[in-house]
Amino acid sequence: MTDTTMDRGSGSGSGSSSGPGSGSRFRSGSEAGGEREAGEILAAARLCVDPELRRAVDSLPGSMRRVVLYHFGWEHADGTAAAGHAGKAIRPALVLAAVRALGGEPAMAVRAAAAVELVHNFTLLHDDVMDRGTTRRHRPAAWTVFGDADAILAGDALQALAQRLLAEDPHPGASVAAARLAACVVELCAGQHADCALERRGPDEVTLDECLAMAEAKTGALLGCACALGAVYAGAGCEEVEALDGFGREAGLAFQLIDDVIGIWGDPRRTGKPAGADLAARRKSLPVVAALGSGTAAAGELAELYGRVAGRGAGAGSGAGSGGGADVGLGEGELARVAGAVERAGGRDWAQVHAADRMSRAVGQLARAVPDPEAAGGLLALAEFVTRRTY
Amino acid sequence: MTDTTMDRGSGSGSGSSSGPGSGSRFRSGSEAGGEREAGEILAAARLCVDPELRRAVDSLPGSMRRVVLYHFGWEHADGTAAAGHAGKAIRPALVLAAVRALGGEPAMAVRAAAAVELVHNFTLLHDDVMDRGTTRRHRPAAWTVFGDADAILAGDALQALAQRLLAEDPHPGASVAAARLAACVVELCAGQHADCALERRGPDEVTLDECLAMAEAKTGALLGCACALGAVYAGAGCEEVEALDGFGREAGLAFQLIDDVIGIWGDPRRTGKPAGADLAARRKSLPVVAALGSGTAAAGELAELYGRVAGRGAGAGSGAGSGGGADVGLGEGELARVAGAVERAGGRDWAQVHAADRMSRAVGQLARAVPDPEAAGGLLALAEFVTRRTY
Repeated sequence: MTDTTMDRGSGSGSGSSSGPGSGSRFRSGSEAGGEREAGEILAAARLCVDPELRRAVDSLPGSMRRVVLYHFGWEHADGTAAAGHAGKAIRPALVLAAVRALGGEPAMAVRAAAAVELVHNFTLLHDDVMDRGTTRRHRPAAWTVFGDADAILAGDALQALAQRLLAEDPHPGASVAAARLAACVVELCAGQHADCALERRGPDEVTLDECLAMAEAKTGALLGCACALGAVYAGAGCEEVEALDGFGREAGLAFQLIDDVIGIWGDPRRTGKPAGADLAARRKSLPVVAALGSGTAAAGELAELYGRVAGRGAGAGSGAGSGGGADVGLGEGELARVAGAVERAGGRDWAQVHAADRMSRAVGQLARAVPDPEAAGGLLALAEFVTRRTY
Repeated sequence: MTDTTMDRGSGSGSGSSSGPGSGSRFRSGSEAGGEREAGEILAAARLCVDPELRRAVDSLPGSMRRVVLYHFGWEHADGTAAAGHAGKAIRPALVLAAVRALGGEPAMAVRAAAAVELVHNFTLLHDDVMDRGTTRRHRPAAWTVFGDADAILAGDALQALAQRLLAEDPHPGASVAAARLAACVVELCAGQHADCALERRGPDEVTLDECLAMAEAKTGALLGCACALGAVYAGAGCEEVEALDGFGREAGLAFQLIDDVIGIWGDPRRTGKPAGADLAARRKSLPVVAALGSGTAAAGELAELYGRVAGRGAGAGSGAGSGGGADVGLGEGELARVAGAVERAGGRDWAQVHAADRMSRAVGQLARAVPDPEAAGGLLALAEFVTRRTY
């Protein structure tokens, strides 16, 4: 059944009826068929990986299970069952699509896909504590419901569960995958550290290169790792594994750029975050930093607005009561002014052009490992999907 | 060289000149020879495992490396070199001693020993954030120096490093060890959760059984895991592995009981914690809970003193400014009164008797897996050492 599920929406031939599935897809990024295909791949990955995830989460002791079930959207805070909005399953879908692209059997990589998703969720739980992010997937973040300690512990346990899944996986690629995933966690932590450090600095003390490096570590690394793990599970050679890592990293950076655009101009009903949340928190997101460095008059206006707060606290401890979003001091009118300044300074355009550039690099890496466009279709559809989100 | 180091102070024959090394050690727990032997085993383990630990830590990106080097006592907060007080290396010593006790080659298990130590230190970093513990190994805890976020990230990275060491270890037992260590992390988290939850409850709402279960999860589990990993690396069968896990767990509980006694009556110059730190923070440590449940007049006095504070915060976020120790409200005179009440209610005696009982159970488990007292000598010396600490 698992395998049947994966076959639906796959890009490696059987799913070609849902899109052109031809070489032209390497260049064009807007076919409705590709989007439908990506949606099907994501849904199939979710169906495929969720049972493995739930089994892993159900193995947790009650105290942490409760926090994790809530975080995944499978339970309400009071422990009653919820519909579940456990995210878009992009990372597990990348693992499985990478296996398939390289001629492997996705059903054998379900544990690896679940492990990547567990690591992703561990970092979300911890990042929300550190960033005082109050909303996650349209609901109050876990730490706001259960407290910092339980959110930290639930994250710790998810990292352990991820490694346990791989350690218990008899697949010959499992230990290489485990080492790679562990190295990726270190990079994710470095990325989050850089993010916190950048947020503490003044708006004129942050360079775009630093922010791009931070985004690669914080977001690109795990998407790259997901693709690389798929390649490892397909038995691919070193060069293919590294090329797929590169593909995921570049696509991840494109994704982050679009996500940052959404963080400023996104529709709260779709994003699950308050309008202009990134601006309200004075996040130095990529469009903002690009705008600040543009040398335009609007850049000066933006620097002045962003500079009003001398700096934020040094972490969770010092920011306990501040929360995210509207209570940091910028009113709705000011938020609109800031967003306008970022746009006039070229931050929005830059982010969109740079995202397209990263996508083209991603496509280059993918072609290196998977020259057959038909085989690469699933991965490409996923990459295009995440960078083509409407807001 | 590594191997030579391990040979010094080993209890499996070559080190027998440093102690009686006879069956009688299974019964008596006070020979100076045993203590000297344990000290030598610990020093040898430290010498053996430190290079592996440092290599792992040096692989971290600068931001987290700094926090970890500080935490291990290898650097001061300003980044200058420090003498290093990275703890007593009890857990790595247990791994190596268990390998030797079961006829394996300790030099092959150095990575596993380092992995256990990394996990231990990951939990210390996180627990200090959650508990607002301000002092660790005679120095300010890492979160007080670097902030919550960096301490959390450093802990996350250490867990990842531990798993990476095992994933990259070609030893045939490595993946079984990795799965076991990951399962242990989940148990450690559950133990810490239980600890936080117990601390939030009133002194009359906590049972001794709950506290013992918490201590087993929080302390016993990792000592058990250390011994079990040693058995796995020695190629032992399931029964031996479980018996060694049981040995470590029981010894761990004995250790916790003694540690709790030290937390009340210990000499600050030796413990590195302020005098009566556990009482000042109103920790429901085992001697305290035993005293509270004793039905004596002193128990009532103790309950009254402990009950003055209705409850503590729900975690790191809410307790940011409280710190640990003296600023929670009990003066020195009151601390002495509380300690006296615990003692008069029998808490100190109970803890010492119960520690001895746990040690005897530990010895029973050890004898099951390692019937030859000569071979078991090293493990036994370590277990006796940790429960015989003076204060």
